[in-house]
Amino acid sequence: MNAAPLSKVFCIPAPLTLDSGQVLEGGEIGYETYGTLAADASNAVLVCHALTGDQYLASPHPITGKPGWWERMVGPGKPIDTNRHFVICANVIGSCMGSTGPVSIAPDGAPYAMRFPVITIRDMVRGLVALLDGMGIARLHAVVGGSMGGMQALSLAANWPERAARVLVIASTARHSAQNIAFHEVGRQAIMADPAWAGGDYYALDAKPDNGLAVARMAAHITYLSEAGLTEKFGRRLQDREAKGFGFDAEFQVESYLRYQGSGFTRRFDANSYLYITRAMDYYDIAEEHGGKLADAFAGTSARFCLVSFDTDWLYPTAESRHIVHALNAAGAKVSFVELSAPHGHDSFLLPHDQLDRVVKGFVE
Amino acid sequence: MNAAPLSKVFCIPAPLTLDSGQVLEGGEIGYETYGTLAADASNAVLVCHALTGDQYLASPHPITGKPGWWERMVGPGKPIDTNRHFVICANVIGSCMGSTGPVSIAPDGAPYAMRFPVITIRDMVRGLVALLDGMGIARLHAVVGGSMGGMQALSLAANWPERAARVLVIASTARHSAQNIAFHEVGRQAIMADPAWAGGDYYALDAKPDNGLAVARMAAHITYLSEAGLTEKFGRRLQDREAKGFGFDAEFQVESYLRYQGSGFTRRFDANSYLYITRAMDYYDIAEEHGGKLADAFAGTSARFCLVSFDTDWLYPTAESRHIVHALNAAGAKVSFVELSAPHGHDSFLLPHDQLDRVVKGFVE
Repeated sequence: MNAAPLSKVFCIPAPLTLDSGQVLEGGEIGYETYGTLAADASNAVLVCHALTGDQYLASPHPITGKPGWWERMVGPGKPIDTNRHFVICANVIGSCMGSTGPVSIAPDGAPYAMRFPVITIRDMVRGLVALLDGMGIARLHAVVGGSMGGMQALSLAANWPERAARVLVIASTARHSAQNIAFHEVGRQAIMADPAWAGGDYYALDAKPDNGLAVARMAAHITYLSEAGLTEKFGRRLQDREAKGFGFDAEFQVESYLRYQGSGFTRRFDANSYLYITRAMDYYDIAEEHGGKLADAFAGTSARFCLVSFDTDWLYPTAESRHIVHALNAAGAKVSFVELSAPHGHDSFLLPHDQLDRVVKGFVE
Repeated sequence: MNAAPLSKVFCIPAPLTLDSGQVLEGGEIGYETYGTLAADASNAVLVCHALTGDQYLASPHPITGKPGWWERMVGPGKPIDTNRHFVICANVIGSCMGSTGPVSIAPDGAPYAMRFPVITIRDMVRGLVALLDGMGIARLHAVVGGSMGGMQALSLAANWPERAARVLVIASTARHSAQNIAFHEVGRQAIMADPAWAGGDYYALDAKPDNGLAVARMAAHITYLSEAGLTEKFGRRLQDREAKGFGFDAEFQVESYLRYQGSGFTRRFDANSYLYITRAMDYYDIAEEHGGKLADAFAGTSARFCLVSFDTDWLYPTAESRHIVHALNAAGAKVSFVELSAPHGHDSFLLPHDQLDRVVKGFVE
């Protein structure tokens, strides 16, 4: 995990009052843009990233060198067409890719670490709204997000209803379930059980809580995939061997894959950020923010909504999207909904899927 | 985790040749019995326990003091009626409640720890068959098991077909799936990432890998429950507080519950045993043992089979039981199958369920 990589940085001009009541001063937002903003600022599309995502939407990741996480979807002539739209993707606050988070230096000159205020999804969106204000964008052509990105899109629509004309929410939910919280708690406990975590004050130490963070990532990664997808991809096949070795190496391909996912993740992500962002997701419950009734969160909205779910997604299953659709219907909003068939579970929103491309293109253009 | 508690102990008279090719000498089996063996030894019922279970089936656990794990099911006048049947429950080899496992002392006077041979489900059953031999039980009236207990019951039926007249398999599977392996691998990595694990040689040290073992248990525990069951039991309710605390304590009830499950587990279970038993389950694939076709594993069997699944069990879903039923049908075996409705996921086999009681009573009597 390196320090903040090169990216555009927006300094939030005013202190940000958070849901906790704490105030974040001098916050920064790392972001990338693609395409050109129209003179009347009417062509902006904000894409919100998922838990471990970042602003490198359609350009190479500065640490891994890999292509942007949605290169397939965003670019000239692509479903979100940068010949027509000005596309913005910003690192959420609390993360570690250039936006203010636990790894950032606090006013006293030391990293915030666990002194960073606990944030919510709505706080992340507060940062994004400040960025839009700074860019002179009063109303987005569209806000788009999958998974935690979808939470941000919904939070923007519920709390700043005038800021987006179109809201596209993919493989997401209106509130984190007990099972969602449980999986996140396992990940947090894995990190905090790692002695190298050192109460979060590991930035000046030689060792980082990589073991704990890798275990957290492995547990989470299973929830991103479907049972059928794992069976198709790995089954019970052995890794680089003909017969069982009767030991504790990664004998099965699925073990080797998970270990690779875990260790790779530690090179690009900060363990404290993982704690803060999972916590924000656990607190997320849009209905609760609006008196307990989800429809009330969207009362009077003029935005058009599109919800997309995947039939094998068991992390945020179709029922969660349908719940949102019912609330939007009750609120009298314009909403379309499609459940797509895909074998790969929750991760399907990041993988090639022609039907998803068509849905995104049709809704955003 | 204490040393082996008081229990009946059977010394396996002959060396046990394991699937790995290694030989276990001087193996012991901790076991409990309930009821009286008939003079012709025709009334024996073997109940096989799950991953973290033990022989304390219908009598208090010596460490926790809690009632036996299936007290409801086994006893005078209960579905498995000890007025009629002689019920045996034995700790599997590799475990830590009196049967030989990593915590046991090897011939050189030190604990086996990770020098214990890697075992399989079939190896566990080899130990059980030796116990039955020692008791003079040629043919069981029935073998019964849930989850990993069901794996042992199926393995007995497939590999020692003359040893059981009735085979009752609850919430189980004929092979561990990629997703099953993946969850186990997360648990193992959590244990092995704990510095207190010390390569498995922690028995003489002050600290045990309790943090890693607790994380492993937490991750596994989520898979034992259903999403709906977690929502019903905990939802998003906060623990001992009126409002969100914006911190990293166990704020949600589900977090508190999971932490309790994790820490409680470390008081009664050995981390190395957890590694060995999960590994045995991962290797489990009855078809693979019999040339790749599951029906061949049961060719010519004269036993009656009963398969039970639960509709909310996503660890070993109904499709796994149905797969076994199809194979038994193809093998011409007598088989009945029922999917029961229960809100609590995989754990349902351990929880009160009148229909399950009736199925067990009807099949075993």
